[in-house]
Amino acid sequence: MTFYQKIRAAQKATKSLLCIGLDVDVEKLPPVLRSRKNPVYIFNRDLIEATADLACAYKLNLAFYEAQGQSGWETIEKTIACIPDHVLTIADGKRGDIGNTAGLYARSVFDQMGFDSCTVNPYMGEDSVRPFLSSAKHGVFVLALTSNPGALDFQYLRINRKPLYQHVVQRVASWNSRNNCGLVVGATRPDELLRIRSLTPDMPFLIPGVGTQGGSLEMAVRHGCTANGDMAIINVGRSVVYASSGRDFAQAARSAALVLRNEINLLRENTF
Amino acid sequence: MTFYQKIRAAQKATKSLLCIGLDVDVEKLPPVLRSRKNPVYIFNRDLIEATADLACAYKLNLAFYEAQGQSGWETIEKTIACIPDHVLTIADGKRGDIGNTAGLYARSVFDQMGFDSCTVNPYMGEDSVRPFLSSAKHGVFVLALTSNPGALDFQYLRINRKPLYQHVVQRVASWNSRNNCGLVVGATRPDELLRIRSLTPDMPFLIPGVGTQGGSLEMAVRHGCTANGDMAIINVGRSVVYASSGRDFAQAARSAALVLRNEINLLRENTF
Repeated sequence: MTFYQKIRAAQKATKSLLCIGLDVDVEKLPPVLRSRKNPVYIFNRDLIEATADLACAYKLNLAFYEAQGQSGWETIEKTIACIPDHVLTIADGKRGDIGNTAGLYARSVFDQMGFDSCTVNPYMGEDSVRPFLSSAKHGVFVLALTSNPGALDFQYLRINRKPLYQHVVQRVASWNSRNNCGLVVGATRPDELLRIRSLTPDMPFLIPGVGTQGGSLEMAVRHGCTANGDMAIINVGRSVVYASSGRDFAQAARSAALVLRNEINLLRENTF
Repeated sequence: MTFYQKIRAAQKATKSLLCIGLDVDVEKLPPVLRSRKNPVYIFNRDLIEATADLACAYKLNLAFYEAQGQSGWETIEKTIACIPDHVLTIADGKRGDIGNTAGLYARSVFDQMGFDSCTVNPYMGEDSVRPFLSSAKHGVFVLALTSNPGALDFQYLRINRKPLYQHVVQRVASWNSRNNCGLVVGATRPDELLRIRSLTPDMPFLIPGVGTQGGSLEMAVRHGCTANGDMAIINVGRSVVYASSGRDFAQAARSAALVLRNEINLLRENTF
């Protein structure tokens, strides 16, 4: 199954555009887990078990795992092994390096850790992204326009009357011969989301920034989806995974995910 | 000791601007090490022992270690522990993420792994770099103009008649209130190296691209140093660390490092 096929199949099987961000901070774990041997893994496993029919994707931000050293690495591999095959997995590491080194990162996220896809940074250009595109079953989400305040520093600078992020979008489209490129576009930038969707009508978008960062869920759906009302992958982290800090954390996460999935689907029905 | 002080002290103590890139590919290890328990660590340890009086810095590209999974993480920590205090250590991971996540990466490279400094990617702007700058003893090298072919894709795009990399350089200079910012500038771009040095007369430059990538050592020294003939950190990887694949690998690396250090110093004497 190719990368795009996997996204479509996952969104269809789960009737969901929701991506759950498993960005787990040890300090925020439910107290009931703290005495367990690998509490982050137990937390992830239980969350996945409770939500795998409601999420088209899980995204692991690698920083949260790296911050735990060696054991974090083990947690990633064990977490990925819990995720059912019908759901997309995204390694959010925002990597990028010269060609041969990027190839090692690709090997690490796809082969070693077993992710379907990963986020990459475009600053170093084509040869820093190419090694991630060599197999049609693995894909990337290239940072186009990010959700954070610092996006204003460089991504909006205008070159020939077009902002830098738009140049990035057009270059990524030109690298997409295997249909395995996607883009990261922040939900905090709804107007630009619409513009980028018009430039790349079929590309999958990973959309962070809903929730704590203040992005609108409605705009993420309306502006982020293709004309078919899919291929937007809307990431929500904290408000789902920390829905409760009690023993019921997994059930509470399920309830939060269900509300979000249904809210997104209502917006899809009313728009597409 | 602050970051800049550490660089100056390291360059003085070792009389060297040479940085040795410990980017170790398991497949290229001397056969004599292959039966050892952690051959990459043994290789690094012996190389460091043989060259620590000749190199102002060691740079570990994290991709090479990540590609080995959990054991790679252990190798990094054990390798860092072998590097004498007078030498600068650089985690080459080219990280960058939204503020709170960048903070986790900073904790990972500085606190967990014990590096003095790391490389970061500027695309996501100020809040993706700031968390790495909170202590004056730790520093960053921000990617300005990279040595690879893909540098042409975005870094040279002109905004108000100045290329993007120059905007990056000027922003980085504005973030440098603790004197712990440096830049990555490829040796394959000698003219731009000179221009960037004129814009930031005192900033440390990490200069990759000499050797296999074709950058000129002479230009790296002449254009990369400050007026005092220092603060250029010239990275050389393969031609030093794989100088011999025999039992004499460490001594051969020492000989190669010695030749490079002396060549660099001759160029410094003739220029500054």
